[in-house]
Amino acid sequence: MKPFVFINAAMSADGKISTKERKQVKISSSEDFLRVDRLKADSDAVIVGIGTVLSDDPSLTVKSEENKKRRVKEGKDENPIRIIVDSYARTPTDSDLLHKGDGKRIIFVSELAPEQRKDVLKNYAEVMVIGKEKVDLGEMIFRLEKMGVNRVMVEGGATLNWALISQGLVDEIHMYIGNLLIGGKNAPTLVDGEGFSTKDKIPRLELLNSQKIGDGIVLRWLVKH
Amino acid sequence: MKPFVFINAAMSADGKISTKERKQVKISSSEDFLRVDRLKADSDAVIVGIGTVLSDDPSLTVKSEENKKRRVKEGKDENPIRIIVDSYARTPTDSDLLHKGDGKRIIFVSELAPEQRKDVLKNYAEVMVIGKEKVDLGEMIFRLEKMGVNRVMVEGGATLNWALISQGLVDEIHMYIGNLLIGGKNAPTLVDGEGFSTKDKIPRLELLNSQKIGDGIVLRWLVKH
Repeated sequence: MKPFVFINAAMSADGKISTKERKQVKISSSEDFLRVDRLKADSDAVIVGIGTVLSDDPSLTVKSEENKKRRVKEGKDENPIRIIVDSYARTPTDSDLLHKGDGKRIIFVSELAPEQRKDVLKNYAEVMVIGKEKVDLGEMIFRLEKMGVNRVMVEGGATLNWALISQGLVDEIHMYIGNLLIGGKNAPTLVDGEGFSTKDKIPRLELLNSQKIGDGIVLRWLVKH
Repeated sequence: MKPFVFINAAMSADGKISTKERKQVKISSSEDFLRVDRLKADSDAVIVGIGTVLSDDPSLTVKSEENKKRRVKEGKDENPIRIIVDSYARTPTDSDLLHKGDGKRIIFVSELAPEQRKDVLKNYAEVMVIGKEKVDLGEMIFRLEKMGVNRVMVEGGATLNWALISQGLVDEIHMYIGNLLIGGKNAPTLVDGEGFSTKDKIPRLELLNSQKIGDGIVLRWLVKH
């Protein structure tokens, strides 16, 4: 069965995930930390796009000791499989994601990724080639299924979110809407990329839940297919 | 006292107000119609930017008979003063806003607006020149105050929203978040323009209220100054 894929994101009240300089701003509140850490700890894999690795250098580790212990008690690694979608194998070898925390790492690349880069990255993670010019995301999800992955958390960014949504691969979106306005024609939003046109079948959502947390609100949307 | 200024907008779950082609998509649900009509009927003025006039040609009239009658009973026109922020006097003379419904219309232009265009528009609306190259929005609010306007509804679009917010002129934002994803790096968002930088004092909000309506949710934010 296709794994359950959900996007987790924090955006400003006007839908931005960072400033126009792609610099992170504090969007979610500290009260929201536990929700996100729990979501991550409950996932089998966490996926991030290369853009986010380059701009934010996230480690994507489970943070709370309690959540880590629980995973280990269940016979799992402390962290879910951490995955980078990186068509041209541009992941820097000093990325936190490749060094912090235990657990498996996979970098999905395309056939356009240079051999030399792939060879270097193999010292830090499993490198899998799928897709001619870009990582074939449907195939990626299929491979994850074969590895026994049931629950996949997508940690952005805007371009990966678009790619997954436009290919119908996302089941739910969990968004924290923070109490700030960022603005900007060029600031990254929750879903960037090409965008739907009025000629497309625009995906509809169902609001499963809303909950005020800290100074913001969390919306959980089901993507209707 | 400075009039109370609030933005009313409907956006997709990912913060877009239309597709990349600037074509309107049904974002709000029919259940939300009455809330918005009531907000409009309770306002003394409704402001819209020229971009929205050119792309959507809104009439900005009060729609429900009940709300119109209530206004007339209170000694008001059926519609609030309808205002276009139009620095270069580009409003087309056949715009619905200039023809549909009764009530006063004002077009604010800058000193750069061509004389000939201003003369033409004077047949349809009051034309007021404030600001050298762009309409001076602070001065506009001040002029409205002098006219006895207490409550101003801003109907977008993205550029006007940014201009008002970045100048600290907005008191509240009422946003309907619709159950759809539009996506797109170039699709207009709730607040476009230049956008805040991490060096700026980014405005914080206070979530006053959230309410599920139809298939979406309405958030009412106070802008902290």
